Amino acid sequence: MSNLDQLKTELAGLQLEDNPQIVKQKSRDFFWYSPVLKQQLDHVTGDLVVTPKSEEEIIQVLKACYALDIPVTTRGAGTGNYGQAMPLSGGVILNLAELNKVKSIRPGVVVVEAGAIISKIDEECRAHSGQELRLHPSTYRTATIGGFIAGGSGGVGSINWGGLRDLGNVIRLRVLTMEAEPRVLELTGEDLHKVMHAYGTNGIITEVEMPLTAAYDWVDVLVGFDEFMDGVQFADRLGNQDGLLVKEIAPIAAPVPHDYFLRHKKFIRKDQSVVVCMVASFAMDAFAAFVRRNSKASILYRSDLADEADVKSLPPAYELAWNHTTLRGLRVEPGITYLQVLYPFPDQIEKVRTMVELLGDEVPAHLEYVRFDGKITCFGLPIVRYTTEERLNEIIKLHEDNGCPVFNPHRYTLEEGGMKQTDEVQLAFKKEADPKGLLNPGKMIAWEDPSYDYKSDKLFLFPGLQPA
Amino acid sequence: MSNLDQLKTELAGLQLEDNPQIVKQKSRDFFWYSPVLKQQLDHVTGDLVVTPKSEEEIIQVLKACYALDIPVTTRGAGTGNYGQAMPLSGGVILNLAELNKVKSIRPGVVVVEAGAIISKIDEECRAHSGQELRLHPSTYRTATIGGFIAGGSGGVGSINWGGLRDLGNVIRLRVLTMEAEPRVLELTGEDLHKVMHAYGTNGIITEVEMPLTAAYDWVDVLVGFDEFMDGVQFADRLGNQDGLLVKEIAPIAAPVPHDYFLRHKKFIRKDQSVVVCMVASFAMDAFAAFVRRNSKASILYRSDLADEADVKSLPPAYELAWNHTTLRGLRVEPGITYLQVLYPFPDQIEKVRTMVELLGDEVPAHLEYVRFDGKITCFGLPIVRYTTEERLNEIIKLHEDNGCPVFNPHRYTLEEGGMKQTDEVQLAFKKEADPKGLLNPGKMIAWEDPSYDYKSDKLFLFPGLQPA
Ligand SMILES: Cc1cc2nc3c(=O)[nH]c(=O)nc-3n(C[C@H](O)[C@H](O)[C@H](O)COP(=O)(O)OP(=O)(O)OC[C@H]3O[C@@H](n4cnc5c(N)ncnc54)[C@H](O)[C@@H]3O)c2cc1C
Ligand SMILES: Cc1cc2nc3c(=O)[nH]c(=O)nc-3n(C[C@H](O)[C@H](O)[C@H](O)COP(=O)(O)OP(=O)(O)OC[C@H]3O[C@@H](n4cnc5c(N)ncnc54)[C@H](O)[C@@H]3O)c2cc1C
Repeated sequence: MSNLDQLKTELAGLQLEDNPQIVKQKSRDFFWYSPVLKQQLDHVTGDLVVTPKSEEEIIQVLKACYALDIPVTTRGAGTGNYGQAMPLSGGVILNLAELNKVKSIRPGVVVVEAGAIISKIDEECRAHSGQELRLHPSTYRTATIGGFIAGGSGGVGSINWGGLRDLGNVIRLRVLTMEAEPRVLELTGEDLHKVMHAYGTNGIITEVEMPLTAAYDWVDVLVGFDEFMDGVQFADRLGNQDGLLVKEIAPIAAPVPHDYFLRHKKFIRKDQSVVVCMVASFAMDAFAAFVRRNSKASILYRSDLADEADVKSLPPAYELAWNHTTLRGLRVEPGITYLQVLYPFPDQIEKVRTMVELLGDEVPAHLEYVRFDGKITCFGLPIVRYTTEERLNEIIKLHEDNGCPVFNPHRYTLEEGGMKQTDEVQLAFKKEADPKGLLNPGKMIAWEDPSYDYKSDKLFLFPGLQPA
Repeated sequence: MSNLDQLKTELAGLQLEDNPQIVKQKSRDFFWYSPVLKQQLDHVTGDLVVTPKSEEEIIQVLKACYALDIPVTTRGAGTGNYGQAMPLSGGVILNLAELNKVKSIRPGVVVVEAGAIISKIDEECRAHSGQELRLHPSTYRTATIGGFIAGGSGGVGSINWGGLRDLGNVIRLRVLTMEAEPRVLELTGEDLHKVMHAYGTNGIITEVEMPLTAAYDWVDVLVGFDEFMDGVQFADRLGNQDGLLVKEIAPIAAPVPHDYFLRHKKFIRKDQSVVVCMVASFAMDAFAAFVRRNSKASILYRSDLADEADVKSLPPAYELAWNHTTLRGLRVEPGITYLQVLYPFPDQIEKVRTMVELLGDEVPAHLEYVRFDGKITCFGLPIVRYTTEERLNEIIKLHEDNGCPVFNPHRYTLEEGGMKQTDEVQLAFKKEADPKGLLNPGKMIAWEDPSYDYKSDKLFLFPGLQPA
């Protein structure tokens, strides 16, 4: 009997799926955003999908896989863009879709199972006590909270709260180790970063305690500009308005809004750049006063004054932003791809201008304003009109040479993606939590290649854990 | 019959008080913080206190006073520090203490009568739906919301939301004009600044619509440092932590905390500087991790782990901060006074160091970290060991010469106080709203002295209303 057959026997009471079509489907994520990854990972598939219903069932899976040397790759909703959830060495896809209960809600805090869909958590928190999560990816309606923490970085709300990297944006994680007898760890404070943005290579998150903030009616607003850089100035000033509560500010250069936002097209001229905003309903008077101060800004759409039919038929503003901008682009022009850039404070506006002038319509700008180390600045998720991998690498180098770090979304390892820095502490934890290296193999270079030099002056979103 | 007697007759149905002792008491505020103002204003008194119970009664008072040319000075709780509420020309003290109903609460918004005490508003909002005001003066338990808006600037919570000056921190004001037939104005957006921080010279605020935020359990924390500048570094970094929810960060130099915080003395060494913090209870793990990163910081007190007896007997942390620091100092050393300084971003730390080195123990530092134009920086309310007015003015000039604007709390006019810039728009509004100049006379130089040149390059917290 093969190891896999033995595993199936041992897990007979659990929900298993080995139909190769379905297994392959559940082995994929949004890696195809990258023409580079598409080529590298297209063939990847696991052998068996297991869908546990409880922590006990997960422990059962881990024990069995440990004994049989079978790799385990955890899956939330599979919306990652870098092949994070793809099982490079086959084995078990641990699908957490059914571990999705909201366990408790109190002022400022929700405790939830890792497989819960983010928008569902917010629905329950809002109904319970007018609360919601601080930040969420634009995949709000599909992604799991565990997948966000293990594979994401920030998103809508990061203009107020920074990113997952920031102390305080996750309170506690309950984590299972991959050992003969899996241990349950409760991580808080500094220790959280052992498993955050680690692609599930350092343990399985089963339960999450997250801070909440007040839930309001968020008004979707599109503000139009004839010149993209005027929109950037507007966005920058808006982000620096301390009393004007917004949840999202995304300047997007023409012709992207008109060409890719098909259902909003009627509000937008082809040569118009747009700043996509979400504004607290009670701040709309202040927001309108703020827009009036800027003679170059005009409100193209606001959901609080829109036709009911429009409001119903249009996607929410956050699904125009973050990596949904790229997704809408890919639907219209499958040949495009994107980058992930930081324009560091305090020169963000000048740096954006430089890159726009250098790259023009080959790389239409898309910015996301955020708080970063206490300052308002912007990330970029520019569209790239892709030609060759060489040219893509040139474009990346151009950014870096101009002082704009790139978090390369065309790499599937933690380190090369540029968000996560590994170091001795991270590696020592991996040795403890996954001594056989069975968790999502191939994603952490420091583990795969003992000669890998993880010391680097590069900027990492999630820096190493070694105390300075 | 004198005008005053006639007024009494006309207002016979209202709550009136003309006992000179009581009238004098209700004509005073905390002007005596300033040895300069103490001398100038000590004799000031009104003639009659009227305590209306409704907007209709206020209109009755205004009509009668207008017809009889009697000045009207509005009073909230009289906690202002610059003689704002003191009737320089006598007349009526319009005491709003009984106009204090919370009218409605919904997500993000409270509507309240102007005389409501700020902590009472929060109590109702918290009980109603777990909400609270964004910012409040340290006189939380005594000051009125109308007095805060008409005479204050910011305080606890300004680290998250900036100050009253910022668009969005007040939603709507209902205002009565001082005319033959008082009009009711509903001001929003840019127009709010016609009456904000105008000392009641431009109309009587009767109703206020304020934005709310989530109410949490705030943990009071004192963090100790051997060197004040280490505390400043800590405070600065803490303020720049995007995910760590705090409501107050105030570094205070030794020996102030030990010498003036009598009930906290037992936790503090005489040579220890302290950073006073309020931290969301669910952020305490993250806060503790943050403190551990800083080898020079030690937690002296945290209310969530304190003895019940301590928690009961100690004043709340916010009553160690803002102008309560000064108040506690005045109780121990009546000879001291204070200043109000801005240390502009991005050089705030260097500027603080410069002033500390220049002035030493003559001017012990007290900082208040805030958001200001989108950046984390600090105000100062340093203690001044007062000798003469000349020396006080020298100290002010030293600050200004070193790039630290002073909002002079030893002046009773709007303009000289340095927070409020008057201009044509402000003046035109005053002409409309108070054509006879009966509202709180003597406080707006631009009105009193038609030759006053209000153009100025000085920094004003509330700039002029003229569009740029
Ligand atoms: C259209 C689009 C928009 C996006 N917008 C954003 C955005 O705004 N911000 C952002 O940060 N990302 C964004 N992403 C990327 C991705 O959607 C997010 O990171 C998302 O939160 C991932 O959640 P998921 O449940 O799909 O995780 P998955 O893709 O299933 O998993 C992500 C990684 O986490 C691991 N993992 C999942 N669950 C666990 C667990 N319980 N324990 C341990 N490891 C686990 C997986 O193995 C994998 O390595 C976007 C992607 C798309 C396609
Ligand atoms: C110990 C101490 C600490 C303080 N801390 C702070 C602080 O942290 N932040 C801060 O900003 N200030 C602070 N102050 C100053 C003062 O307490 C605040 O500004 C406070 O909010 C004033 O409220 P009040 O009700 O006492 O107003 P009052 O002192 O009664 O009035 C203030 C001004 O507003 C006018 N006014 C009052 N009500 C109305 C109305 N309804 N319509 C029109 N005009 C009106 C008055 O005429 C007066 O000019 C402090 C003062 C003290 C003594």
